[in-house]
Formats: sequence, C-alpha cells, structure tokens
Amino acid sequence: MVMWSSRRKARPELPRLRPRVVPTDLTRVDFTELVPEPVAFLGQAAYIQLDFFESLSKAVATAPTLAAKEGLSAAAGVALRKHHDLIAELRRLDVEPDAVMAPFAPATDRLGESTAGADWYELLLGIHVTSGMLDDYFSRLAEGLPVELGTRVRAILHEEGAGGVLETELRAAITAEPGLADRLALWGRSIVGDTLLIARSALRASDSADRSGERVEPVFTELIAEHTRRMDALGLTA
Amino acid sequence: MVMWSSRRKARPELPRLRPRVVPTDLTRVDFTELVPEPVAFLGQAAYIQLDFFESLSKAVATAPTLAAKEGLSAAAGVALRKHHDLIAELRRLDVEPDAVMAPFAPATDRLGESTAGADWYELLLGIHVTSGMLDDYFSRLAEGLPVELGTRVRAILHEEGAGGVLETELRAAITAEPGLADRLALWGRSIVGDTLLIARSALRASDSADRSGERVEPVFTELIAEHTRRMDALGLTA
Repeated sequence: MVMWSSRRKARPELPRLRPRVVPTDLTRVDFTELVPEPVAFLGQAAYIQLDFFESLSKAVATAPTLAAKEGLSAAAGVALRKHHDLIAELRRLDVEPDAVMAPFAPATDRLGESTAGADWYELLLGIHVTSGMLDDYFSRLAEGLPVELGTRVRAILHEEGAGGVLETELRAAITAEPGLADRLALWGRSIVGDTLLIARSALRASDSADRSGERVEPVFTELIAEHTRRMDALGLTA
Repeated sequence: MVMWSSRRKARPELPRLRPRVVPTDLTRVDFTELVPEPVAFLGQAAYIQLDFFESLSKAVATAPTLAAKEGLSAAAGVALRKHHDLIAELRRLDVEPDAVMAPFAPATDRLGESTAGADWYELLLGIHVTSGMLDDYFSRLAEGLPVELGTRVRAILHEEGAGGVLETELRAAITAEPGLADRLALWGRSIVGDTLLIARSALRASDSADRSGERVEPVFTELIAEHTRRMDALGLTA
C-alpha cells in the first residue's frame, strides 16, 4: 500500500521518549518519503472509521446515563461522517468503495473485537487508545498523498471526535471506582500492540527486507508518546 | 403530555380501511384538536430517534455485506441527526434534554428490545415497522405544536431515513430465502401492537374516561393502513 518516493537520506538523531511499550516488529520509516497509494489508503482509513463508529454505537447503547449517551452519540456521528467523507473521496477516484474496503475488513474487525473489552469502561478505553493513535497516524500518513487530496483527507481526519467525551467519562469513572485505574492501565497497555500492527499494515512497503530489525521510527515513537500522554491525562500508567 | 384545545366537534364519517390488526385500547382522537405539550413531545420524539439510531447501529454492526453496512450507516446517521436536532429544540426552550427524555426511556427501550428480533432480518423489519409508524405519527402530532416549532419539527422528522435501505435489504432477502416471508409476516404483525402503545402514550390526554371503548380514530387507522402498505411493498401480509 505504501511506496518509497526516494531513497532514504541520512538524518540527524532526534531526541525521543523511550517508549515503555516497545513495538518489536516495526520498520524504520520516514513519513515524508512515503507515498501512500491513495485508493488503498482511503479504503483502509474509511473502514477504520466505520469500525470506530460501530464501537462508539455499542458504547452509546450500553451507556449507563443519558448524559454519556449524548456525548458518545455525537462522537459516533463524527466517526460516521469521517467514514462517509472518506468514501466520497473514493467515489471521486471512480472506484467502488466496498471493493476497496473489503480487504481491510478482517484485520480491522479483529482490532475492534480485541479492543472491545470486558465492560463499558474497557470498551471506552479501547476506543480512546485505538482512535487516538490511528487518527493521528493516518493524518501523518496523508502528508504523502497528492497535495489536494492530502489536504482534504487531513481536514476530514482532524475533526475533533471521541477524545473529549471518552476522557471525561473515563476520568469520572476512575475517580469514582477504586481499583479501576489499575485494571484500565493494564488494559490500555494490552491494546497498543494490536493497534500498532494495524498502523504497520498501512506501510506494506515494496522492499521491507533491509528495514527489518532496525530501530523504531520516530513517527511510531511519537504515536506512543501521544498514547502515553492520553493515558497520563487519565491518571493511568502507560 | 397532550391537552385538548377545544371540545370535539361532530365530524362526518370518513371512509377508511378496515385494519387487519385491530388496536383494542386506543381512544378516539382528532389530531387537529390536540395541542401536544412541546417539552414532553420533543423529549419523547428525541429519545425515540436515539432508540432508532441504536437499533440501526446494531444492524450496521451485524450486517452481512459492506453494501448493507453503507446504506444502514447512512440511515443511522439520519436518525442521529433527527435526535440531535430535536434535542437542539429542547435547548432553545431552555430545558435540559436529559431530564426531559428520561421518563420516556424505559418504555422506549422496551420497544427497542421487543422489536430487535431473533436475527438480522427481524431486526431490520422491527426498525422498518416502528420507525415507519412513529415518524409518521409524530409528524402528524407536530401539527398541534406552536406553528414555527411545529414546522421545524416536521422538517426534522420528514428527512428520508431508513425506509429505503430497509425495504431494499428485506426484499432481497425475502426473494432469496424461501420461508422467510412467512416468518417475517408473523413478526411484523407482532410488532404493531407494541408500537401503537408508544403512540398512545404520547396522547395522555387529561380527560380520557369518556373516550375509552370508542372506535379507532382515523389517524390510527391511517397509521395501520400505511403499515399495511409497507408490508405489501415487501410482499408480506400485514
């Protein structure tokens, strides 16, 4: 799905956070050198938003209060709009969205299932972690798309979605229920690996042999640093 | 929730379809004489749309094809928009939507559960029957609201929602699967009574004593006639 636009250049070492969760199988990638194949990119991004919509809808249906339903249903609406807007971009390219999304369905559905958790709070944190990381990631990846398409895609993905309401609900629950923080911290950690695998699948570069085993790329490090910040905001150890 | 604006006048007998499903406990009501209490009306209508959204989201999540997911997710988006637009009308009236909707939650949730069915096709027909009848009904009831509010509410409720996609999916399934028509015809019939009870709950008139046992009001007859047409369009006996 992703091709190299040029040879990698030597780059100075960047300061970085040491990730507490170490992805073991990620290749070194400079995003500015990546040119995502637009159709596959849009298909995967669109299907992922559909998955967020389904998870958020489940969170709405099982929400304990009407106030929570309100905030979550608005967030579900945003994910749905992103999905439909990305599909509209596929139609502009004269391709049939279903056919393009289909190959991404199994892995994305598995992510949705594996991050649904054992109760409402785990479901919320699952959405918070996966949508937080993947919205960031696909926005970054969109930098390599043709300029106009990339600009539109970034505008679509940048709309504030579920983060605010998820943080509010989770913080309230963590404050109210002793012991929940520890359980959710563990749960959050267990989700990161699956999410990074999805991110990595968007980087199926043509020549991956010489990059295996190299150290983690800054963009992944940043994704994890952002994840750590999201967890910190909840008072959870990432 | 509904008050009489004037005494009922004698009206000429209207031609009507004999309903095949006979509601036994509905009072005689002339809609043009009804003045719904705006806050309660909006609260119930808004919560019902939230329920349709949840049912449609469940249908999206369990859809067998991506094409079905597409159509249903768009319909879920419409129900969600109606919900949020009705809530916005409550906020214009300076009331807290959650407090207004809460009393309607139990009965509406029960309707959603009792019409969810045993599989995806029963879920779809459950939404088709309940949203078909209740969107019509609340639009009619909105005629008695203050003129400007009523006009906005009718515009909100008139947006084409799930009907088209539900009919398409159900017709395809009924054609493809022998025996499904009989099962769905039975199922559709069993839903009508529960749906009419919700409609009736919106008519909690102040003086109901003298109307019990009177014959079914034309507007309910029309609701059932529309229901019969929807079932006919699917090749199902209502």
